[in-house]
Amino acid sequence: MGTEEKIVTWICRLTVITAFFLVGFIIGCFARPTHVNHGKTSKSFLRDFLDEMQAENIKQHLRKFTRLPHLAGSQQNLILAEQIRDEWMKFGLDTVHLVPYDVLLSYPNKTNPNYISIVDHVGNEIFNTSLAEPVPEGYEHVEDIVPPYNAFSAKGQPEGDLVYVNYGRTEDFFKLERDLGINCTGKIVIARYGKIFRGNKVKNSMLAGAKGIILYSDPADYCAEDVEPYPKGWNLPGGGVQRGNVLNLNGAGDPLTPGYPAKEYTYRYPAEDGVGLPKIPVHPIGYHDAIQLLKNMGGPNPPANWKGALNVSYRIGPGFTAGIEQNKVRMNVHTNNQVTRIYNVIGWLRGAVEPDRYIILGGHRDAWVFGGIDPVSGAALVHETVRAAGKLMSRGWRPRRTVIFASWDAEEFGLLGSTEWAEENARLLQERAVAYINADSAIEGMYTLRVDCTPSLHTIVYDITKKVPSPEVGEEKMSLYESWHKRDNWTEQNLPRISKLGSGSDFEAYFIRLGIASGRARYTKNSKTERYSSYPVYHSVYETYEIVERFYDPSFRRLEAVARVRGGLIFSLADSAILPLNCEEYASSLIKYANSIYQLAQKHPDAMKQYHVSFDSLFSAVGNFTDAARDFHQRLTHLDTSDALAVRMMNDQLMYLERAFIDPLGLPGRPFYRHIIFAPSSHNKYAGESFPGIYDALFDIENAAEPHKSWDEVKRQISIAAFTVNAAAVTLMPVV
Amino acid sequence: MGTEEKIVTWICRLTVITAFFLVGFIIGCFARPTHVNHGKTSKSFLRDFLDEMQAENIKQHLRKFTRLPHLAGSQQNLILAEQIRDEWMKFGLDTVHLVPYDVLLSYPNKTNPNYISIVDHVGNEIFNTSLAEPVPEGYEHVEDIVPPYNAFSAKGQPEGDLVYVNYGRTEDFFKLERDLGINCTGKIVIARYGKIFRGNKVKNSMLAGAKGIILYSDPADYCAEDVEPYPKGWNLPGGGVQRGNVLNLNGAGDPLTPGYPAKEYTYRYPAEDGVGLPKIPVHPIGYHDAIQLLKNMGGPNPPANWKGALNVSYRIGPGFTAGIEQNKVRMNVHTNNQVTRIYNVIGWLRGAVEPDRYIILGGHRDAWVFGGIDPVSGAALVHETVRAAGKLMSRGWRPRRTVIFASWDAEEFGLLGSTEWAEENARLLQERAVAYINADSAIEGMYTLRVDCTPSLHTIVYDITKKVPSPEVGEEKMSLYESWHKRDNWTEQNLPRISKLGSGSDFEAYFIRLGIASGRARYTKNSKTERYSSYPVYHSVYETYEIVERFYDPSFRRLEAVARVRGGLIFSLADSAILPLNCEEYASSLIKYANSIYQLAQKHPDAMKQYHVSFDSLFSAVGNFTDAARDFHQRLTHLDTSDALAVRMMNDQLMYLERAFIDPLGLPGRPFYRHIIFAPSSHNKYAGESFPGIYDALFDIENAAEPHKSWDEVKRQISIAAFTVNAAAVTLMPVV
Repeated sequence: MGTEEKIVTWICRLTVITAFFLVGFIIGCFARPTHVNHGKTSKSFLRDFLDEMQAENIKQHLRKFTRLPHLAGSQQNLILAEQIRDEWMKFGLDTVHLVPYDVLLSYPNKTNPNYISIVDHVGNEIFNTSLAEPVPEGYEHVEDIVPPYNAFSAKGQPEGDLVYVNYGRTEDFFKLERDLGINCTGKIVIARYGKIFRGNKVKNSMLAGAKGIILYSDPADYCAEDVEPYPKGWNLPGGGVQRGNVLNLNGAGDPLTPGYPAKEYTYRYPAEDGVGLPKIPVHPIGYHDAIQLLKNMGGPNPPANWKGALNVSYRIGPGFTAGIEQNKVRMNVHTNNQVTRIYNVIGWLRGAVEPDRYIILGGHRDAWVFGGIDPVSGAALVHETVRAAGKLMSRGWRPRRTVIFASWDAEEFGLLGSTEWAEENARLLQERAVAYINADSAIEGMYTLRVDCTPSLHTIVYDITKKVPSPEVGEEKMSLYESWHKRDNWTEQNLPRISKLGSGSDFEAYFIRLGIASGRARYTKNSKTERYSSYPVYHSVYETYEIVERFYDPSFRRLEAVARVRGGLIFSLADSAILPLNCEEYASSLIKYANSIYQLAQKHPDAMKQYHVSFDSLFSAVGNFTDAARDFHQRLTHLDTSDALAVRMMNDQLMYLERAFIDPLGLPGRPFYRHIIFAPSSHNKYAGESFPGIYDALFDIENAAEPHKSWDEVKRQISIAAFTVNAAAVTLMPVV
Repeated sequence: MGTEEKIVTWICRLTVITAFFLVGFIIGCFARPTHVNHGKTSKSFLRDFLDEMQAENIKQHLRKFTRLPHLAGSQQNLILAEQIRDEWMKFGLDTVHLVPYDVLLSYPNKTNPNYISIVDHVGNEIFNTSLAEPVPEGYEHVEDIVPPYNAFSAKGQPEGDLVYVNYGRTEDFFKLERDLGINCTGKIVIARYGKIFRGNKVKNSMLAGAKGIILYSDPADYCAEDVEPYPKGWNLPGGGVQRGNVLNLNGAGDPLTPGYPAKEYTYRYPAEDGVGLPKIPVHPIGYHDAIQLLKNMGGPNPPANWKGALNVSYRIGPGFTAGIEQNKVRMNVHTNNQVTRIYNVIGWLRGAVEPDRYIILGGHRDAWVFGGIDPVSGAALVHETVRAAGKLMSRGWRPRRTVIFASWDAEEFGLLGSTEWAEENARLLQERAVAYINADSAIEGMYTLRVDCTPSLHTIVYDITKKVPSPEVGEEKMSLYESWHKRDNWTEQNLPRISKLGSGSDFEAYFIRLGIASGRARYTKNSKTERYSSYPVYHSVYETYEIVERFYDPSFRRLEAVARVRGGLIFSLADSAILPLNCEEYASSLIKYANSIYQLAQKHPDAMKQYHVSFDSLFSAVGNFTDAARDFHQRLTHLDTSDALAVRMMNDQLMYLERAFIDPLGLPGRPFYRHIIFAPSSHNKYAGESFPGIYDALFDIENAAEPHKSWDEVKRQISIAAFTVNAAAVTLMPVV
């Protein structure tokens, strides 16, 4: 070859080599793992995960965890905690620990039982209520069944006239005092259970001046038509009694250590300064005993809708009918408050990509007696979820984010285990927690799904329920979503109904205090046709394994469906590259709530004008939020998902959105309720109120002693709400 | 060529090509930008950045911004804001905006001036204090010089006996009431300026029952030896007066909108419910006027160390000496509070890699008059920093994180501009802010550097000062670090002294309320030898450009050095891949503070025993924190800095450490002071107190009315401190 040829040849070779180098370079660029997500793999693992959760396993877990009573603070509940810890470790979690706290609990005095008497004019006890419920078949030899009582009742033996106060709601006391002219000062009141949280009944009674309160279950509320009492059916027997605490904690957790975890070294307030402890005796009875108190009562007839379903002529009191009007009622309550050790079980499953992002599945373990429904129908599902997650891990899966599983203690005593853990870990949670899914009772009826959650979770709830089959007979080809939609249509949206979160379960500290996106799901009754409160045997000795197996869910497919909803939410939140939280749903809800609170205020058009009350700032803020949410989701569709930091940045905006609604100053008089959009109603802890600050300022304002000051407070609350919604909108805008 | 040969040739060619492909692939892998840091580039840009800031420019900025008075709320201060906005845009920031608020300010009544009189027994004003300061040369034709006053004084014309209360400190009133038996109820008190924040003097006087308070500058505190009064020297002339607000806001910001930004729509409390407003008249005077009040006072002689340096015989009062004992003092104060619009200037420099991480450089713009030192010596430095950053950006640099530059308004009226902005942006800041560097007055003396900052910034402060040359004549080869170390050795560490942050400037809301790592740096006097408070002409009309140019920093090299310290901190915090925050320094400080508060309690060994007061939990928590900090920094050395998410995770732990010390419940009675480790002293806003909750609980406990309750509060505060330190330790541990 000549020199020229050689040069040409070399040029060719160099060109080829360069080309291959470049091809290698480019492939190398893209071959490098960027640590973002599993892509389609994640979706197929979701299918496996949902399928892995099985009715038969849930049945076994429920059976296993309901054999013995496991009251908070009891030896048996510690044994159960240890068992759960050990099994979760076996299932494959990375770490599982018992986390103890020393909190104020409350137990009856074993040697000096609680009861109610009728005493005659010379002081003889001519009738006493029963000391215990008849024990259901098969459980006759079980020890340590705590007799019915209201935890944290004050001690005392008040004696006096009896006044019937219906459900003991705020409006019931208004009716009594304003319309019927009956004064409860110095009286013992009797209220029927239902409609609102029992602690609110007690608070209302104290405010009315009562010196004691008796709570009873009326068949109108606790016996469904055409259903037999347990064990033949699922109604409450006449000797059955609803236990339950009567605190007004407003989210404080342990009454002696508000704001701080109840560790050994923690300062405890003296008992008399404890948060939310009632100052009067409270005691619950069944309807067989209630008849004896109600049947001869004097005083006027009650309004028609105050009449329960006992075979007596309801009278309001005070006192008894002619001839026995000197009879009195005496309460004998000897319940003790005592600082007691409780144990949460906390299990960690480390995230593969973002271990510092936490998804929490938590539900309580402690039960008043066997806890057949409350809480073990929920705890069994958590157990099955952990088992399924372990199974997937053995096949090579690990979620993108960390999942925390929690078995809380002492929920029944005021959400204590979950609140103390939230207090201890507040700093980690506020920086790192993405979402909290609650796992209390999974079934309270036999009709359809019930979901309460923060608006940003709506979309993922619908998505997951579309992936779960309906558990109902005859709906074999339907998804849970379709079944749910058919049975409970949210007409304004033509979607299955989703409601606001209230309180009364362990999500409270996570959602209302810390501002972590939260939700709960369970199977429920048909609320359009069924009047009775929750399930009738609630908190009685009749909440057994058998009541679930015989009546509520013989195939265990309803529980399986709920397990898959809860588990599916956890999976999606933990494993999706982009967090499945929808800000536009939050915007829609804010619009609805703003309209609704505005309508409420508009009931006072003259005062609105007189005191210059305007909602313009709130509507303007909601408008800003709506725009910001829409723009955010538009930007999200253009996100370069291979850019790990860009993904993290927008995920952080999604995660912190719920946090943006937290006001560190809290709601008026309720420092631990800090969510400006949602809080438990001041009149019923179970119910959720939207824009609670404004709502409470408007409540009963037509009777305000100083209208100017009251309307000033309305204006202040509107201004706080407008600011908060605006500030939340800004968190969704581009970060610079 | 034969077939074999061809095959061999092709194999060779393929091998070469494959090899080049592989080389390309591997280089491609590593060539791909990982969006982490600039590495060495960042360091060389730091050098450029420090060098870019120049004395001559600072001099020009100072000159430009001190020509006219620019009181908060005035037209001139808005003009200055617009000028700064326009120049920052020209310098190259991404966006700059004016951010307005409508806050409560306070001005003298222009037609009804404030003054103090001596009135004789028939009510004639026989002496009146001056209505204004003599105006310095060259400023004779300047309008709008606000006469000396104490902003937010109550209006009124109280008349009564005069009592001298020294500095008006808590201990001074203890001395008066307990040792000297003098009751201030119904009296007018006169206190000398100095030692503590003037608002605390007013609060103490109100608590003592005084009906008015006169503040004056004593030469003992405001005239250095062998220095002439301005303009011949930098001492305070006899006609000079210190202006200043007398609020006790405790971090609330605008008195009418505590906790929320003072936007147009914000609810405002009625004036009488405003936070921290004094209920009595307050007025400041110079020492020429003070002589007239003090020279004939009656009552006992004061303790020796209460005597100032006026040529009078100090007496305590009440009232005047024999012969004129019927003379009284009358205050005439007509100052008005009014809601007024103020403007912050906020400039953004978008981060290249983590735009959602914010570093803030903020200082105020508003001045009592010309603001030669306070604040323009600081504002000029911010201006120069923005200019230097713009210069670097024109050379291709952009910081990893976002930098926010702020020119706050109405600092002199209670840190209002900075606090309102913190309130408005609290959600963004608590999730995204890495650090806040304050930029108030940059010079208060001619001796050496003074730094107050959070412990985690110590290391980077030392590092930066090693890169800055000493500005002192004769130290041309020394670094600022060496000069500073030589002049102010912190003997226990053998390092230049760094102190705790107190308050009295705009970092307060960022550090004490939001828990953002904060620091400040300025040039100061030799505190070992110089007794006078700060610089003598502080807040007088004599704070001019000329006082800096003639006396404090003729070469402007001291201001240049401070600019480089503040700017260097901002640069390092914004641009280092790993945040330059040191948790082990925090641990060392906690050990020191815990020992110190324990020693304080140990002054009451009997009570400690009697009430079972133990610091074990606090020491144990500090031990946990120390271990966690050490382990954290060990893990940090093994961090794979090419893993963007791993870097972000540990940086988040560093960033959120300061946040972990925030207690949302706040300190007792001070809801906006929420930092458990640091707060302004309850007795002097200027000073920082460590473990302030415990400190305040222990304060004067030997005189507690109910010792049991007081010691219970000590125990509660120890428990809160122990919990908080433990919780902070947990944030540094591995995230799972």
